[in-house]
Amino acid sequence: MKKTFVAAAACMAAGVACAQSSVTLFGVLDAAVAYTTGSGPLATSKWQLTNSSNTFSRLGFRGTEDLGGGYAASFWLEAGLQNDTGSGFTTNTNNQSSGNTTLGGLTFNRRSTVSLSGPFGEVRAGRDYTPTFWNTALFDPFGTGGGIGANQIYFSGFGGLTSPTGTRASNSVGYFLPPTLGGFYGQLMYAMGENESRSDIVGLLPTWSHNDGNYVGARVGYLNGPFNIALATGRTTYTLIAANLPVSNNLRVSNIGASYIFESLWSLKLMGEYYDESQGTLDGKGALVGFNLPIGASEIKLSYARYEREPAGNVPKPTSSKVALGYVYNLSKRSAVYATVARISNSNGASQALSGSTTSPNHASTGTEFGMRHAF
Amino acid sequence: MKKTFVAAAACMAAGVACAQSSVTLFGVLDAAVAYTTGSGPLATSKWQLTNSSNTFSRLGFRGTEDLGGGYAASFWLEAGLQNDTGSGFTTNTNNQSSGNTTLGGLTFNRRSTVSLSGPFGEVRAGRDYTPTFWNTALFDPFGTGGGIGANQIYFSGFGGLTSPTGTRASNSVGYFLPPTLGGFYGQLMYAMGENESRSDIVGLLPTWSHNDGNYVGARVGYLNGPFNIALATGRTTYTLIAANLPVSNNLRVSNIGASYIFESLWSLKLMGEYYDESQGTLDGKGALVGFNLPIGASEIKLSYARYEREPAGNVPKPTSSKVALGYVYNLSKRSAVYATVARISNSNGASQALSGSTTSPNHASTGTEFGMRHAF
Amino acid sequence: MKKTFVAAAACMAAGVACAQSSVTLFGVLDAAVAYTTGSGPLATSKWQLTNSSNTFSRLGFRGTEDLGGGYAASFWLEAGLQNDTGSGFTTNTNNQSSGNTTLGGLTFNRRSTVSLSGPFGEVRAGRDYTPTFWNTALFDPFGTGGGIGANQIYFSGFGGLTSPTGTRASNSVGYFLPPTLGGFYGQLMYAMGENESRSDIVGLLPTWSHNDGNYVGARVGYLNGPFNIALATGRTTYTLIAANLPVSNNLRVSNIGASYIFESLWSLKLMGEYYDESQGTLDGKGALVGFNLPIGASEIKLSYARYEREPAGNVPKPTSSKVALGYVYNLSKRSAVYATVARISNSNGASQALSGSTTSPNHASTGTEFGMRHAF
Repeated sequence: MKKTFVAAAACMAAGVACAQSSVTLFGVLDAAVAYTTGSGPLATSKWQLTNSSNTFSRLGFRGTEDLGGGYAASFWLEAGLQNDTGSGFTTNTNNQSSGNTTLGGLTFNRRSTVSLSGPFGEVRAGRDYTPTFWNTALFDPFGTGGGIGANQIYFSGFGGLTSPTGTRASNSVGYFLPPTLGGFYGQLMYAMGENESRSDIVGLLPTWSHNDGNYVGARVGYLNGPFNIALATGRTTYTLIAANLPVSNNLRVSNIGASYIFESLWSLKLMGEYYDESQGTLDGKGALVGFNLPIGASEIKLSYARYEREPAGNVPKPTSSKVALGYVYNLSKRSAVYATVARISNSNGASQALSGSTTSPNHASTGTEFGMRHAF
Repeated sequence: MKKTFVAAAACMAAGVACAQSSVTLFGVLDAAVAYTTGSGPLATSKWQLTNSSNTFSRLGFRGTEDLGGGYAASFWLEAGLQNDTGSGFTTNTNNQSSGNTTLGGLTFNRRSTVSLSGPFGEVRAGRDYTPTFWNTALFDPFGTGGGIGANQIYFSGFGGLTSPTGTRASNSVGYFLPPTLGGFYGQLMYAMGENESRSDIVGLLPTWSHNDGNYVGARVGYLNGPFNIALATGRTTYTLIAANLPVSNNLRVSNIGASYIFESLWSLKLMGEYYDESQGTLDGKGALVGFNLPIGASEIKLSYARYEREPAGNVPKPTSSKVALGYVYNLSKRSAVYATVARISNSNGASQALSGSTTSPNHASTGTEFGMRHAF
Repeated sequence: MKKTFVAAAACMAAGVACAQSSVTLFGVLDAAVAYTTGSGPLATSKWQLTNSSNTFSRLGFRGTEDLGGGYAASFWLEAGLQNDTGSGFTTNTNNQSSGNTTLGGLTFNRRSTVSLSGPFGEVRAGRDYTPTFWNTALFDPFGTGGGIGANQIYFSGFGGLTSPTGTRASNSVGYFLPPTLGGFYGQLMYAMGENESRSDIVGLLPTWSHNDGNYVGARVGYLNGPFNIALATGRTTYTLIAANLPVSNNLRVSNIGASYIFESLWSLKLMGEYYDESQGTLDGKGALVGFNLPIGASEIKLSYARYEREPAGNVPKPTSSKVALGYVYNLSKRSAVYATVARISNSNGASQALSGSTTSPNHASTGTEFGMRHAF
């Protein structure tokens, strides 16, 4: 249940339009007991209470004011919750690793935006999801949450979870197409790293890094009945200094995702993603296929993801693949219990492991989780 | 006033039951001007604005969804407030001192849980109160808040305020008996320290500490009209390394508390607690008696608590005792003003002092506070 | 729209009056794209997404309980929002720079108070605005927010933005005159630094600094129709140790502000402030004039502020002045878009610059911002 409060706000004396408004308090708490383990001589395992395995835990406030004529002003504040410990999530202030805040208190790390929308679309400012994030989250039956089934490309790649712009960007201005284009949708974003224009004035060697942390990206898609497809691309500017000279270390991420709902086949939803990333001399590629099958109050989810790092030269590519199988029993639209099993395989020197465990190169990591989720 | 919003949530298409739900925003702000001082050559004193002297300051969100058939899903997010400064309280991520978060932002340190309940009782996951905490808080007329009258056993003991599991545990799974057992009630908790399974793989000596921070505890009680009694016991696993060998340093806490309301005697509520703790070679024992006497809108509270540390061998035991006298005037059910005086005596080398002051060994510490509390 | 919930709380059994209550969730999100630059050899510039340029971004909870007879209990929790990044603002725990908390999580840094009010006025405890802050904020058309037009005295002076008591004080007890005095209003505040009474007991030299961080201040004003005037003065105790001897380093701030609304002149609101501060051998003086002119849904704002540092002796005084011009278009009572241009000039060695830029001594700094603001 979202609590939505509707009120006719007082009209302004000076001839400004009356506004109809609503504010909503919303959130999710999701907790699971998880066991993950690696294999081989370097293996470690762990029992944990994890958060966000089925749906990301959060607490949020959002609202919209109708300005008349199809125009609206709105806000969205959404904080991630580590409900296993009561702490919030960190946010990042400048889209660079130097801007990570300290773990502890609640931050509106998930989204913190103010918007103006109308027939032209929506202009949005603040901290928001990057266009290059969405396909990884939406075209995976397990998404990108804290669960063991979550999109392995997002966890293995350098442009995903560990990148300051892999999920969201701060200091962003975004534009969204209006929902009136016959199924076409799209998002443009420019986000600022907010560096000083020059660094040499404090006596240091110049680093020419004043554009670092600037992100530019776009996503376009088409949704028509059971069919949905979207592609996205983005670049974050980063610079390395080698021998006192700047070397571009830009991060580029591109991906395409699609899904189809076979309504005659118990509404089976088939989905997939292809992903490509590069930074300096590093390259990475990923692909995923999966499905979601609702059966009454139950839901069965399966995904297979593969990610390979591409070093320079004709050498074997470290490759990791994950298979995840999930079962969800919906107690209501808002509450569910669920179980997941997952396994990561590694080859060519890769050693990716499920969260909480470590594994030896070329060895597997496996895990099980059982949890409950409640949305409000 | 708690703000409770009731709404009939939309029914799910897939045959899942309709849900009746509520979400409540609640909190307390409590502030007091306090003066505390020690005595003897090492004495210091302090004037402070303190929080939480009558009732712990907090801000929370909680809700329940009726799933039908006596089943319900619910959540509870509750943050402690240092309303004298506007900061939150820290939380702890792993039930070990290494997991303390940084002071500053709001955390849901007091409680952060998601639950499934039914005729069988309640299963609860997240950060929650440990079973061994409750008797110390509930069978003391001053509780365990920030006031000078608060339970001295909780402040003096090593298994109370300063212990990562002395109040709450993170990463916990709990079970509560249903409220239909003729007055019997109970809580079981298992909480995880979430350590790596082994530490030697990084080249360090093994520490066998992967169970550190694991907590297991239970509490059972019986409430019948004016009479209430409960006992609790719990263990947190900790390990010391001595000469490269692990030595168990487990913390064990047990206590029993009871209260009786003499309804013919102006509803005087008499209460008491006995408390026992040990960790490695350390032992501690505490006892408390007190009462709460409502007279119209007023309330008089008195408590006497005694705590002795028990070193190994037949040596004098450092002992501290506190007597506290409080007066509360209820302006309404939610708002009150109050005053408290308290005095701690020390013997056999003990030097416990009221919060904000320090005192010399075997010297007394005294304090006065005057405050107001408002709940919403 | 503020969401106000009114409920008849349950009456208390013990003869205490029934209470009528309300709790309100409120806030502001304000974001602007800003470019600021300095000039001269040391100049730097920056593009930023800033928050709080028109109105300070915030999220708050407040409520009042009617106790009958003109008495009420109330609370106010208000957190500043850096909505460009999703983080909160730091707070300060002891009115000294040692008490700054870590950046990251949400704190109720803006206000965190519990109050008791009645015919006598209001007693308020917690973290609150200092009396010496208000004139700087209220008698400036741009206020003291994060915008480039904000009061330059507040940014340049040592008793403003950078002082732990320049805006608010923690651990405060305040008294406010009742609103029934024919236009006269007033605020008294005493806030505690909460230091140990002595420091020599830990083997250090005495610092006699136990009063550091104590603030005392007062403000009185008179509002009559279009005319408003207020004066304020305050002192924060600080101590320096020179050659093992304590030297008073108290911060003193005094100011006076006034405004007049010319209703026959399109409701032009003219305003001004005079400001004086000193700390040890440092002195500073500031003055500001400005106006706010509403024209239909539009608003034009202009301000000119001047601040000079006064070193000991008859030497040239480093002086900075800012002129700012702003345009606001109100989409509704709660939502607006706006643009501001501002320029700081420096002389006699001053090098004040607009936030985000640096400038060479005696050189100017200029900036432009374009933003939107939404209140709820």
